[in-house]
Amino acid sequence: MPRRSPNEPPDAPEFRQDAVSGRWVVLAPERAKRPLGLSHSKPAVRVNVERAVCPFCPGNEADTPDPTLVVPDPAGGPWLARVVPNKFPAVRQIADDSRGLTQRFDLRLLPGFGVHEVVIEGAAHETDPTALPDLTYQQVLIAYRERMKAFAADRRLDYVSVFKNVGAEAGASMAHLHSQLIATPFVPQDLAAELAGAATLFADGGGCPYCELLRGPLGTPPRFVAESDHFMAVGPFAPRFAYETWVLPKAHESHYETITDAQALDLARLLKRVLGAIDAAASVPAYNYYLHTAPLRTSPMAHFHWHVEIAPRTSRAAGFEWGTGVFINAVPPETAAAELRAVLAE
Amino acid sequence: MPRRSPNEPPDAPEFRQDAVSGRWVVLAPERAKRPLGLSHSKPAVRVNVERAVCPFCPGNEADTPDPTLVVPDPAGGPWLARVVPNKFPAVRQIADDSRGLTQRFDLRLLPGFGVHEVVIEGAAHETDPTALPDLTYQQVLIAYRERMKAFAADRRLDYVSVFKNVGAEAGASMAHLHSQLIATPFVPQDLAAELAGAATLFADGGGCPYCELLRGPLGTPPRFVAESDHFMAVGPFAPRFAYETWVLPKAHESHYETITDAQALDLARLLKRVLGAIDAAASVPAYNYYLHTAPLRTSPMAHFHWHVEIAPRTSRAAGFEWGTGVFINAVPPETAAAELRAVLAE
Repeated sequence: MPRRSPNEPPDAPEFRQDAVSGRWVVLAPERAKRPLGLSHSKPAVRVNVERAVCPFCPGNEADTPDPTLVVPDPAGGPWLARVVPNKFPAVRQIADDSRGLTQRFDLRLLPGFGVHEVVIEGAAHETDPTALPDLTYQQVLIAYRERMKAFAADRRLDYVSVFKNVGAEAGASMAHLHSQLIATPFVPQDLAAELAGAATLFADGGGCPYCELLRGPLGTPPRFVAESDHFMAVGPFAPRFAYETWVLPKAHESHYETITDAQALDLARLLKRVLGAIDAAASVPAYNYYLHTAPLRTSPMAHFHWHVEIAPRTSRAAGFEWGTGVFINAVPPETAAAELRAVLAE
Repeated sequence: MPRRSPNEPPDAPEFRQDAVSGRWVVLAPERAKRPLGLSHSKPAVRVNVERAVCPFCPGNEADTPDPTLVVPDPAGGPWLARVVPNKFPAVRQIADDSRGLTQRFDLRLLPGFGVHEVVIEGAAHETDPTALPDLTYQQVLIAYRERMKAFAADRRLDYVSVFKNVGAEAGASMAHLHSQLIATPFVPQDLAAELAGAATLFADGGGCPYCELLRGPLGTPPRFVAESDHFMAVGPFAPRFAYETWVLPKAHESHYETITDAQALDLARLLKRVLGAIDAAASVPAYNYYLHTAPLRTSPMAHFHWHVEIAPRTSRAAGFEWGTGVFINAVPPETAAAELRAVLAE
């Protein structure tokens, strides 16, 4: 059977399975040749939803609920980061009665208890993460840590999802840079699958599968994108999305809450570089990124490794993806990583 | 604990788990109050991608690969349905070498072998499924059955995914009505999870969980939408999407291939009614629908029940959904079913 180097992209369609999550994807380079290319009639450049009055700008603090955390600006500005409860929360902070239903199909029901907060990133009305000052970005990353520690004190909460939507196509309904935290009384299914998959691989004797991803089979990481002192950006083996990129701490660590202030600054700078490279390679797409970390109040895990997943919205999920869970991706990660490296080398 | 009837919507956020797939969703009625409401800046009415020349219209047959099935029009028109290989396939019909990679993360790889076909629905350039003539729609549903039977002869293929994208927001790159079939050498993960979940519930002694969904706890199905002689449309207990609706045969049947010509006509008519009701209730959204059926060449299954899932695209998945697999749905299925029933009663 012919072999190829880990950095050589496939020249024909491939099914690939992420070993940790068990998720299959279809790498389909030929789909990029479609008349609509990657876009499925999506706007090529991301569009931000601007309002007449931005409730996240200084002076409009009354438009948001009272903050749970404000990071002051040492330079005298209004703030570096401001964390407020979401005005239209997906979950409610006070538990309702858990009302039972009789049908077996209906047994799986919990009151929508949790916390839903918004992290307003900087006081300036900035819409592009790569333009956010390093120190502001650092404080945003530290705010995640601080809020996660605060949520951990409520023993009803098991997990904190941290995520960011950039551009309307990525679901952002506000232009002013912000991210969100949703704390839930259960571990969401994708995280549960990832934790279980990593534990299985670890039990099989291979060590942490994420450390192995960073180390690579020959001592060099395949699909390498960029690195900093403490972090590395790589393309995953089985990405659902074109130009999907993961950022991981180089040293094994399962819990995001352990990030130091210095590491947060280092991560902010690397994220800005990687996001800028994705903008250059994929025509400034809308994107989401989200944190995968260990559940609250768990002990350090040898098998799990926290990371940020960056998911550009260069195409739309359609009937095949919604119906099967299998994503069709027209840009193999080897190709995407090579393009991102080339952009970063310029 | 206060109880409510199975048709009463929650007045507060709820987490609900689909018992078969294990998937959690967040029902968040308050999210509908956001300034952008359900839309996340999505066009409220679906948009079709029109081309200067439609390759699916009669006279342009040379623009598509040679058909694998043509259903003649007894009334003398060009055809009722025409099945052609996808010109930009996600999978390839001839297997490539399975090239190995050394890293453990990289072991899960298959050549992208399979079949990807397009079912062109009717000769007229129609873009709205509710306007498709009943007999044409019937032949489309029969074409699925016939192609599935043909694919079953290739023992390398394990599953056929049938799906339809209507509107650009749903991923459709062609306006002329069509659906697609992708046959794969493995059972996609969402189907595998559903089959396993149904088997577990069945083993627990409850019979087929889908039959139970149709029967309801008190002899009437909760979240009932509509029915015909052979089929019933209901809202699922834990829908990912606003106005998500499932259509199931009333008599237990695991394999779509068993559908009769008469049943296909009955299903076509019910689908048109239900899709029309969704258009009326949800402002003519883009949508996908997809078939969940048993894998090829399997014996009849007492625990699994084939069905069509209709998934309107009234909002966009964002960082929380992509990062956790948990969907936020602002329209509880009890509310959606009541609205759909009201529309159908008019």
